[in-house]
Amino acid sequence: MMRTHEAGSLRADQAGQSVTLAGWVARRRDHGGVIFIDLRDASGVAQVVFREGEMAERAHRLRAEFCVRVTGEISPRPEGNENPEIATGAIEVTATDLEVLSESAPLPFPVDEHLDVGEDVRLRHRYLDLRRSGPAKVIRMRSEANRIAREVLHGREFVEVETPTMTRSTPEGARDFLIPARLQPGSWYALPQSPQLFKQLLMVGGLERYFQIARCYRDEDFRADRQPEFTQLDIEMSFVDAEDVIDISERVIRALWRELADHEIPAPIPRLPYAEAMARYGTDKPDLRFGVELTELTDYFRDTPFRVFQAPYVGAVVMPGGADQPRRQLDAWQEWAKQRGAKGLAYVLIGADGTLSGPVAKNLSEQERDGLAKAVGASPGDCVFFAAGQPAPSRALLGAVRLEIAENCGLVDHDAWSFVWIVDAPMFESVADSDDVAVGAGRYTAVHHPFTAPVPEWSDSFEQNPEKALASAYDLVCNGNEIGGGSVRIHRWEMQQRVFDVLGISKEEADEKFGFLLEAFRYGPPPHGGVAFGWDRICMLLSGAESLRDVIAFPKSGGGFDPLTGAPAPITAEQRKEAGVDAKPARRGAGEADQAAGSRSS
Amino acid sequence: MMRTHEAGSLRADQAGQSVTLAGWVARRRDHGGVIFIDLRDASGVAQVVFREGEMAERAHRLRAEFCVRVTGEISPRPEGNENPEIATGAIEVTATDLEVLSESAPLPFPVDEHLDVGEDVRLRHRYLDLRRSGPAKVIRMRSEANRIAREVLHGREFVEVETPTMTRSTPEGARDFLIPARLQPGSWYALPQSPQLFKQLLMVGGLERYFQIARCYRDEDFRADRQPEFTQLDIEMSFVDAEDVIDISERVIRALWRELADHEIPAPIPRLPYAEAMARYGTDKPDLRFGVELTELTDYFRDTPFRVFQAPYVGAVVMPGGADQPRRQLDAWQEWAKQRGAKGLAYVLIGADGTLSGPVAKNLSEQERDGLAKAVGASPGDCVFFAAGQPAPSRALLGAVRLEIAENCGLVDHDAWSFVWIVDAPMFESVADSDDVAVGAGRYTAVHHPFTAPVPEWSDSFEQNPEKALASAYDLVCNGNEIGGGSVRIHRWEMQQRVFDVLGISKEEADEKFGFLLEAFRYGPPPHGGVAFGWDRICMLLSGAESLRDVIAFPKSGGGFDPLTGAPAPITAEQRKEAGVDAKPARRGAGEADQAAGSRSS
Repeated sequence: MMRTHEAGSLRADQAGQSVTLAGWVARRRDHGGVIFIDLRDASGVAQVVFREGEMAERAHRLRAEFCVRVTGEISPRPEGNENPEIATGAIEVTATDLEVLSESAPLPFPVDEHLDVGEDVRLRHRYLDLRRSGPAKVIRMRSEANRIAREVLHGREFVEVETPTMTRSTPEGARDFLIPARLQPGSWYALPQSPQLFKQLLMVGGLERYFQIARCYRDEDFRADRQPEFTQLDIEMSFVDAEDVIDISERVIRALWRELADHEIPAPIPRLPYAEAMARYGTDKPDLRFGVELTELTDYFRDTPFRVFQAPYVGAVVMPGGADQPRRQLDAWQEWAKQRGAKGLAYVLIGADGTLSGPVAKNLSEQERDGLAKAVGASPGDCVFFAAGQPAPSRALLGAVRLEIAENCGLVDHDAWSFVWIVDAPMFESVADSDDVAVGAGRYTAVHHPFTAPVPEWSDSFEQNPEKALASAYDLVCNGNEIGGGSVRIHRWEMQQRVFDVLGISKEEADEKFGFLLEAFRYGPPPHGGVAFGWDRICMLLSGAESLRDVIAFPKSGGGFDPLTGAPAPITAEQRKEAGVDAKPARRGAGEADQAAGSRSS
Repeated sequence: MMRTHEAGSLRADQAGQSVTLAGWVARRRDHGGVIFIDLRDASGVAQVVFREGEMAERAHRLRAEFCVRVTGEISPRPEGNENPEIATGAIEVTATDLEVLSESAPLPFPVDEHLDVGEDVRLRHRYLDLRRSGPAKVIRMRSEANRIAREVLHGREFVEVETPTMTRSTPEGARDFLIPARLQPGSWYALPQSPQLFKQLLMVGGLERYFQIARCYRDEDFRADRQPEFTQLDIEMSFVDAEDVIDISERVIRALWRELADHEIPAPIPRLPYAEAMARYGTDKPDLRFGVELTELTDYFRDTPFRVFQAPYVGAVVMPGGADQPRRQLDAWQEWAKQRGAKGLAYVLIGADGTLSGPVAKNLSEQERDGLAKAVGASPGDCVFFAAGQPAPSRALLGAVRLEIAENCGLVDHDAWSFVWIVDAPMFESVADSDDVAVGAGRYTAVHHPFTAPVPEWSDSFEQNPEKALASAYDLVCNGNEIGGGSVRIHRWEMQQRVFDVLGISKEEADEKFGFLLEAFRYGPPPHGGVAFGWDRICMLLSGAESLRDVIAFPKSGGGFDPLTGAPAPITAEQRKEAGVDAKPARRGAGEADQAAGSRSS
């Protein structure tokens, strides 16, 4: 090692010791002829003093972020110069030797904690960004998160298995990234959206307990906080029901929050049926750090004279103290609702004396006005927001209003943690209601994925009422973020085929895309289930970071562009030719693929 | 859980207990009306008995690899029926209930340990192959290897960082796999050949100690034992010299062999200079489990009358007892040498009385004949093989002869472990001598990679004598397999540019491909170095597997084809269009890339 000690480890009881440090010049101050630097390494910072004369002269050329090696003697700082804010604040190192290991050009931004520079510049020079203690701490915490999760799982005899990342295109609800196969021109590999099929094959293979911190890939139209490659903690188990998977999930999550957030999650984590979450919070990922629940008023307005409320669903949410909002703020709510695609946001203000005002009030019957505050649990001084129409979009709107209210009224305890399992989700949703790329050609798409089993009560009849059938699925939500999701899987090919039928996946298409899984299910597959955790999001929550990009060492920015390396980039004509991008698939290649994909009828 | 116990855990002291097991029918035997099955789960096997009557009748339909749940009572086996070969051999479970969880079609091959079926069939049904205890054990062992390595590294404050796998094409000695970027049509990502550039950037970022069990990708002309995706244990450290990297490497390797092979590797692992390895063993990855060293005879034959030995290099290797080989075996050696591209393999047989025979003997001078046995350390009854010509190919041939001799003469102790570091390798080799895709256009290519530093003695002068310059590199060899390699890296851009000059990489090309690394080196990069271990190969050696494919859950076979999923496969015209495969790069994309890649002169 080029050093004897780490800078951040030095303490007063080492006074008199000679040490060699190596690190970066975090700050330089000249006091008369004496030069002080803060020398920073991964462990922290120590003050180094270059006294008048030769040492000070040599230190004179030091600039911010020069990489240096310093030998010197530890001494207590002169009285009154101690800095209790840092661990090494009682000492300084009086330099007797200095070696510049490398110089630094003027920096694109200062390596400071409080940085006022665009994210693109930070990411382009991510290696400087990571020298800041905040970003460095996040990356170190993520490493600890990996260690803790693996420790829990190894301790319960889970086996870590690396599954392939160059595989067959099997869309699960998004587009695949593709890779031309030079040695089989005209054929392509795909990057997996998850290890789903492989972990199910491992269960068929008798592995019983699998995990992996797995890289996954989705070619999506990247919304603000999406990355083309992301990480999930992937778990699968055999001979289990949902309770077993929920149990191991809670053990992992509890260990993470205990060790990294100093928070003991109460056991067990509460469970909320999907339908109830939608009714009370307008979302399947409710933030339970605060109340402000939705009230359904469909019955209440059953005979209303107000045309807008003559709807399949009417609901409301109350903003405490919201009656005081100035007009311009009430207008801003309308604007906000319109940007979300709603027509507007009906509201009623409840005066200090209980009288209702606002444009909606006068449209209501007297009876409706009189009972409203009680029906929605509002008090004088509150504002009641309404949504009316189809249940799904109306609830979604009220759910969003709920979050806005909580933020605006300071109802969110940012130090609190709220966990909830959402259970009994539907198996299918209408294609019209889904954002995802449909896997099949049917009217329905899978809410989770096509391999999710129904709850036992629906196993014989899900195709008779697809929108009502419930899945044996469980999603874990933390502070309004979905951090994990799993399900009991289908393990019989007959049932898998019935699900494909509902999804409009033909037998030919199923064989082409998932033939190898259906084939595997012919050979005594065990009942199995599993879960996948969004590792980037979990690390983001644990570290208090504001963006997924903060917990990724080298993230992509918008559109999948890497500001650091400039990827993606044009390729040369030679690369294109060599990779076989423009080749037509050979007969033999296609034949091989058909053969390998297998078919139940073969 | 669907079971109360694991099958392999049952012991005689549990007799009388009622248990529920779940697993597979490994074997079924009918004895009169009584049916016995071996029930197998991940933990092992237990014998289940279905007595006459209803239970036997229900068990009658069981076939191999049906997945079942059985409830029954543990009882000691009748005297004389114990099986001491298995852990549960003292007991059996008398079934009181049976549930068939899933059936199995007739198997493509029996799930037995001793299997006589082609590898392609095994891989196509890898989920059945993995039910065999041998393959399952290898996959479990690999999980343990991961755990052990990480434990050593976490214990020494190494930080696990996931680096991107969708990045910029930066060939390091092989072709990149490419991915079209749908959102930036005409631009492509590349899968990384290693995290090399990113781990160096992490060092510039002050992380100081990094590791990752990283997926890597090389689009090579797959030789027998290559996979398009493979895994390496990747380590990088700052403020270190080669000794520090060797030290942490040995700690990891020693822990692996201690825990998984029950073998204590003597410390320290010996080191052998590259030149000495080539001279004594004809290879840079010598198997030191046996002797049979090469003897250089160039001087000895300085004045030889034998035309063939009037060469820049003459060397020999001795086959103990080889003088007894029948003519046809000596002919087979010639054939073997020709298949390796040599003209043949000269030899001399030493008779029991010390007289030399064979076609070469008569061409030698009397003096040469008389002194030969002593010069090469041969005894009566031995055979001496020769190679003459340029040193590199001649030594390579003798090195290969040495391995053949060891195998044929039973000199290899297959229970032994021999580790050696190969140090002081050359920085460069002539392009003509290299198998790799040249990175630059120069006469030289990097023996390790272009980021490898010279040893300090050569740091000012390597370009004056590129073929002589030594690298600060270290490769770890186990039983003749290279299992890891690393180096101290260049951390100053001036030196990096000088290396690029030797490699014939122009400033423009360097900026285009590695501009972001050169740019990073402007900002106080620390001295750093690291190592990467071939994880598949290490797991192969530790498990005693014969092929890299055996230690990979879902390996590719020849040409990168996956017999299980049929990948790679043709894509649809729609996928092709959507992925933007045929788009021309947009001006803006190219501009962004240039800007991000940066340039020292910018």
